[in-house]
Amino acid sequence: MGFVIYLDHAATSWPKPPAVIQAMKKAMDEAGANPGRGSHKMAVQASRVLFGTRQSLASLFAVNNPNDIILTSNTTSALNLAIKGYVKPGDHVIATMVEHNSVRRPLEYLKRTAGVEVDYVTLSPEGELELSALERAFRSNTSLVVCSHSSNLLGSILPVAEMGALAEKHGAVLLVDAAQSAGMLDIDVKQMNIGMLAFPGHKGLMGPQGTGGLYLSPEIELEPQWHGGTGGQSEAPEQPDVRPDRYEAGTPNTAGFAGLQAGIEQVRAWTIEKVYRHEWELSQLMLEGLGSIPGVELLGPGAGKPRTGIVSFVTERMDPAMLAFRLDREYEIAVRSGLHCTPLGHQAAGTERSGAVRASVGMGTSRQDVQTLIQAVKEILA
Amino acid sequence: MGFVIYLDHAATSWPKPPAVIQAMKKAMDEAGANPGRGSHKMAVQASRVLFGTRQSLASLFAVNNPNDIILTSNTTSALNLAIKGYVKPGDHVIATMVEHNSVRRPLEYLKRTAGVEVDYVTLSPEGELELSALERAFRSNTSLVVCSHSSNLLGSILPVAEMGALAEKHGAVLLVDAAQSAGMLDIDVKQMNIGMLAFPGHKGLMGPQGTGGLYLSPEIELEPQWHGGTGGQSEAPEQPDVRPDRYEAGTPNTAGFAGLQAGIEQVRAWTIEKVYRHEWELSQLMLEGLGSIPGVELLGPGAGKPRTGIVSFVTERMDPAMLAFRLDREYEIAVRSGLHCTPLGHQAAGTERSGAVRASVGMGTSRQDVQTLIQAVKEILA
Repeated sequence: MGFVIYLDHAATSWPKPPAVIQAMKKAMDEAGANPGRGSHKMAVQASRVLFGTRQSLASLFAVNNPNDIILTSNTTSALNLAIKGYVKPGDHVIATMVEHNSVRRPLEYLKRTAGVEVDYVTLSPEGELELSALERAFRSNTSLVVCSHSSNLLGSILPVAEMGALAEKHGAVLLVDAAQSAGMLDIDVKQMNIGMLAFPGHKGLMGPQGTGGLYLSPEIELEPQWHGGTGGQSEAPEQPDVRPDRYEAGTPNTAGFAGLQAGIEQVRAWTIEKVYRHEWELSQLMLEGLGSIPGVELLGPGAGKPRTGIVSFVTERMDPAMLAFRLDREYEIAVRSGLHCTPLGHQAAGTERSGAVRASVGMGTSRQDVQTLIQAVKEILA
Repeated sequence: MGFVIYLDHAATSWPKPPAVIQAMKKAMDEAGANPGRGSHKMAVQASRVLFGTRQSLASLFAVNNPNDIILTSNTTSALNLAIKGYVKPGDHVIATMVEHNSVRRPLEYLKRTAGVEVDYVTLSPEGELELSALERAFRSNTSLVVCSHSSNLLGSILPVAEMGALAEKHGAVLLVDAAQSAGMLDIDVKQMNIGMLAFPGHKGLMGPQGTGGLYLSPEIELEPQWHGGTGGQSEAPEQPDVRPDRYEAGTPNTAGFAGLQAGIEQVRAWTIEKVYRHEWELSQLMLEGLGSIPGVELLGPGAGKPRTGIVSFVTERMDPAMLAFRLDREYEIAVRSGLHCTPLGHQAAGTERSGAVRASVGMGTSRQDVQTLIQAVKEILA
C-alpha cells in the first residue's frame, strides 16, 4: 500500500502516527493485565492506561472529571448507549437531515419499539441548519436533540453551541455526534452546552479502530446498555452506580486505548487550529479543482465557507461507484462512493439515488495528493 | 514487568505470542482502512482481515459458515447480544450457580424490566452439575439455558454436550459462555448442540483485549442490540438482514481481530489437547502443593478430576486480598483475589463473604512458576 493516495479519512484516518502502534505494543508488553480486575501491579498499570486516556480526552473536550468519559468500542456504541440509555417511551427527539445511520437507526428502533417520536429537521441542500427551523421543532415532550457536529457527506458544520443553548432553553439535552469533528474542530462541552458527546478514537483523534467514547454530563444518568462484570461491587445483581464502571461492563480494549492516548497527544501537538486550517485549505483546493471540471457537481458548503475536510461530488457522466473504482484501480487513489451510511444526508443534497463520491483529507494529505485527485478525475471524465 | 510470575490468565492471557502484535501492526500498516466501508483496495483488505478471523474461529468451533460468527468487543458484549436479543418477555431462562456477572446481570436486568423468570441451578460445592437438577428446572416456557463452560472461580467443567441435548429435548436453546474454555477445551457447536457460543479473544485464544465474538446458529435470529451503520444497505432505516452485518454496527477493531487470528493460529499449532494437558498438569501441581499447606482450603474439583487451569483457595489465617497483595509485593507473583465477578459461584463454594485467591495458568506458565507460588504461600502463611 506504499503508493496509495488515501482520501478516505472520514471513514478512518490512515496512516496512524508511529507512536500509536508503539504505545499499543508497550501496553501489551507492560500493562497487559485486565484493568480493574485484580490489584496486582500489572492490573493497576492497565487501569492507569485507561485513566490516562480519559485524562487526555477530558483535556481535549474541556471536561472536568475524567470519569465522566465512558470508553466504548466505537462511536456507534457510544451513540447507542446515549440514545437508548436516555430516551424514555413517549419522548420526542429532534435530529437533523445529516445524521449518520448510527443516530438514525437507534432512533428508528425506539420509534418502532418504544413509541418515541422523532423529527429530522430539514437542512439546506448544502447541509446547513437554520436555527429557527430547530426552534420550531421543539415540543413539550422533547427530551433530546441529536446532531452530527459535521456532516460525514457534506462537510458542513452545525452550530452546536447555539443548538446547545436552544436545547437548554427548552429543557432538553444536546447529544453531539463528533464522528467527523473530534480532533478537527474545537469542542468545549461546557461552553457549548453539550450534555453528551459521542466520538470515535480512530478518525480525527488518530487512534486505532476499536476505540471511541461518550462524554456524559455529571447531571445525566443513563440506563446502562451492557450488563456484566465491572471488577468492583461484584456482589450486586445490578450495574454499580459509580462512573465509569456503570457503563463499561466487560474487558476493554486496553492496548487500543493506549494507542488512542498517543493519537490524542499527536493531535494536541499539532493543535486543533492547525488541523482545521490544513484540512480546510485542502478542501478549498478540491472545491476549486473539481468544480472546474465540466459536469462535476459539488455537494456541501460553497467555496470560502467553514467546512471540514470532506468534499463529495457527483457527475451525470459517470456513476459514483465506477468513478471511485477507476480512481482506485488506475490511480491508486482511495475515495469512497455510495451512501456513506447517511441516506438522509443524500436526501438533503438531492443525491439519494446516485450516492456520491467522497474525498476526505487528513493531516498526512498533501496539496500534491489533492492535485493528483483532481487531475485523475479530469482524465477519467475527459 | 520482566520478572513477574503471571498467574492471572483467567482474567486475560499474558504475554501474547509475538505474532499477535506483529499481525496488529501489519493490519494497521497495510489494511488500515475501514472494512466494509468503501470498495477501494485497502478497505477490501480490511474486510479480508475480518473474514480471515471469522474463518479461523469457524474452524476452531466446527462452524460451517464463517458469517455465523459475529465479532464483538468482548465476551460481555456477546452475552448481552445473545441474552437480550433472544429472550422474550414472559420467557423462562435456566442458568447455573457458577455464572459470571456477564450472564447474571443481563438476566437480572430482564427479570427486572421484562418479566423474565430465571432459575440458577444449584451445583455441588466443587462447581459440578447434576444433569437431573437441570432436567428438573425446565418449564413449558423455558426458552434458553445459559451456562459457563468452565467456572471462572472453581475451574470445574460443565457437561455442555449433555446440557445441549437436554435443551434440545425441551425445545430450548443452549448458550455457552466460553470465557474460560475457548482455546482450552474442545468445542464443537454441532456435536454439542450449542445454539450460541460467546467467547473472548483475549484469554485462551491469545488475542488482544477488545476482541470477542458470538457464534449464532443459522436457525436463530436475534433482535440486534447495536443499531447503526453497516456499510451495506444504507438506505434502510433498520439493520440489514444479512449476517454478520445485522449484528455488527459500527467500525470494528480491525487490528485487534488481525491479532486474534494470529493468536488462534498459535493455539491451533499448540493443539487444544496439549493446552488442556499442560494446564491440567499445572493445576494438579497446585492442588498438591497448596493443599499440603496447613490451613489452606482448595476450591473446585479434587485431584485427578477434569478441570481447567484455575485453582482458587482460601485460608482462615489471612484475608485473600492481603495474601494476594503480599504475593504481588514480596514475590512478584500476580494472582487475583476477591469475588471474580461471580458472587453466585462463591455461594456455591461457601466463600461469598471472604472471596478467594485465584491462581490461573497459561501455556507460558512453567512448573517452576507454580513451585514458586506454592513456596511463597507457604512462607507468607508460616
